[in-house]
Amino acid sequence: MPRGSTLNTSQEACCVIVDWGTTSFRAWLMARDGRVLAESRGREGMTHCATSGFEPVLRAHLAAMDAPVDLPILICGMAGARQGWVEAPYVDAPTRLADFAACAVGVPNGFADIRILPGIAQRDPLAPEVMRGEETQLLGLGDMAARQLVCMPGTHSKWVVLEDGWVRRFATFMTGELFSLFSKHSTLAFAMDGDIPFGADAPAFVKALDKAASDLSLSVSRLFCVRAAQLLNFETKSEGAAHLSGLLIGAEALAARQNFPDYADVTLVASGAIVGLYKAALQRVGLNVRHIDADDAVRRGLFSAAHSIWA
Amino acid sequence: MPRGSTLNTSQEACCVIVDWGTTSFRAWLMARDGRVLAESRGREGMTHCATSGFEPVLRAHLAAMDAPVDLPILICGMAGARQGWVEAPYVDAPTRLADFAACAVGVPNGFADIRILPGIAQRDPLAPEVMRGEETQLLGLGDMAARQLVCMPGTHSKWVVLEDGWVRRFATFMTGELFSLFSKHSTLAFAMDGDIPFGADAPAFVKALDKAASDLSLSVSRLFCVRAAQLLNFETKSEGAAHLSGLLIGAEALAARQNFPDYADVTLVASGAIVGLYKAALQRVGLNVRHIDADDAVRRGLFSAAHSIWA
Repeated sequence: MPRGSTLNTSQEACCVIVDWGTTSFRAWLMARDGRVLAESRGREGMTHCATSGFEPVLRAHLAAMDAPVDLPILICGMAGARQGWVEAPYVDAPTRLADFAACAVGVPNGFADIRILPGIAQRDPLAPEVMRGEETQLLGLGDMAARQLVCMPGTHSKWVVLEDGWVRRFATFMTGELFSLFSKHSTLAFAMDGDIPFGADAPAFVKALDKAASDLSLSVSRLFCVRAAQLLNFETKSEGAAHLSGLLIGAEALAARQNFPDYADVTLVASGAIVGLYKAALQRVGLNVRHIDADDAVRRGLFSAAHSIWA
Repeated sequence: MPRGSTLNTSQEACCVIVDWGTTSFRAWLMARDGRVLAESRGREGMTHCATSGFEPVLRAHLAAMDAPVDLPILICGMAGARQGWVEAPYVDAPTRLADFAACAVGVPNGFADIRILPGIAQRDPLAPEVMRGEETQLLGLGDMAARQLVCMPGTHSKWVVLEDGWVRRFATFMTGELFSLFSKHSTLAFAMDGDIPFGADAPAFVKALDKAASDLSLSVSRLFCVRAAQLLNFETKSEGAAHLSGLLIGAEALAARQNFPDYADVTLVASGAIVGLYKAALQRVGLNVRHIDADDAVRRGLFSAAHSIWA
């Protein structure tokens, strides 16, 4: 169900932009000057829409925002996957971020100019990679240092090398999915106590991060310790999630540091509770962290792409 | 259902030995001289018996072997866990393998002298560990080199340092469980094509092993490549399982090599298809491999413990 908040639907509205992920939907009604006039969020991601259809979901969110029906609509994310609404074929890396809006693919429909942005593919047989949605966050980073390393944590964390506005190279870490898999479906599920929130200062997180971020062989060989620590009464179930999280995020940070050894600084593009956890991990492996809000970045990226298509 | 094969149930039978794991049951009717008189296998592991009860399962297997009902019975494995039949509390490492038969726990019942061997706990707050069943395989290795490293692959692989018959230190790698989790429940499930068997010479296995066994940061950062390689047509679904397996077993081998740097030789205790895969991985990280069959080892270990209890 759309969860809309209408601030203003006056004549100044110029477009609708949509971040359509695997499990989430977010749309914004934008004014010509970049202000957000209305917003609508929901859980109708690609997976949901594969059965329900995409257009009815989009229309419901447009209605929730009181959006004029004939505005152009720009979409990024999994709606452009092969299993999505209309496939927007990958653009190949290296690619200039400013160019890829031109590769947006039109969606045949009866009511508006709807386009979906492509993802990016790295066609390297030794390190094949794909992304969908993160490229739009990158576009929204704005101020591009000559060369920078970007970390975008999530279900599938992306680490990206940007150079003069080009996506040079990237790598995926399945950290978020691993955490969810282990805590729901593995032996370690017995070591977790629901979704108890914890911060970067939780002792079990700090201890595990210290281990994992100092020696990759420990994160590989100490996963089972999350369970054994409780069987032997060193830890309680309430500490299991923080322990596991420290091992996984620590391993990601250290492996990425080794994969991208030329960088001392990293731009962390993230929102919510993981910001603190990733900041701690990145600093622990010696990186200087600049944080940018991921929600802001994707909105700015979409708006900038929409501007270059329809302005 | 018991799958028994009765070779001989003559008067020479001296005991029944049972390896009772999480998901499997194996029993042997033994002669005084160590010959196997009958065998019975089934899928009624601890998980199954937690609801069905343990005694009826055991009795059915005894019947399948035509075992005299009053023989003493020695059990190892998860039947001795807290969620098992009767808890056999862990013996603490370091521990002498020859001693722990004495710690077997009696099972109250109306028909025989039944005992369950304990597992081993490593009560190190920095590396807490437990094992149940593998200690009995270790006992079955027989000829003990002064100091040796043992690798016992499985759902939870155990790496153990043995010294003069003592278990000094051990570590668990969740490799088998990770493979099963990823191939069934993760995004990588889309990259797998059922249970197609592959060998250590499968190109996708060799390539992935080469990566993972040379640099741990690659196994952490290249999991998603199993999926991306197919999206970008570098690999087919039939290669997914071999690719994933190479990454996971390679990571285990390299991490273990780093965890136990003092050893150039390893005793591989394994049966079936994983023998070849682990041999390749262990050799790839520079270890000399001596292979011992795991089924033989657990049977010899159980018989040796039974002998020390009842002889």
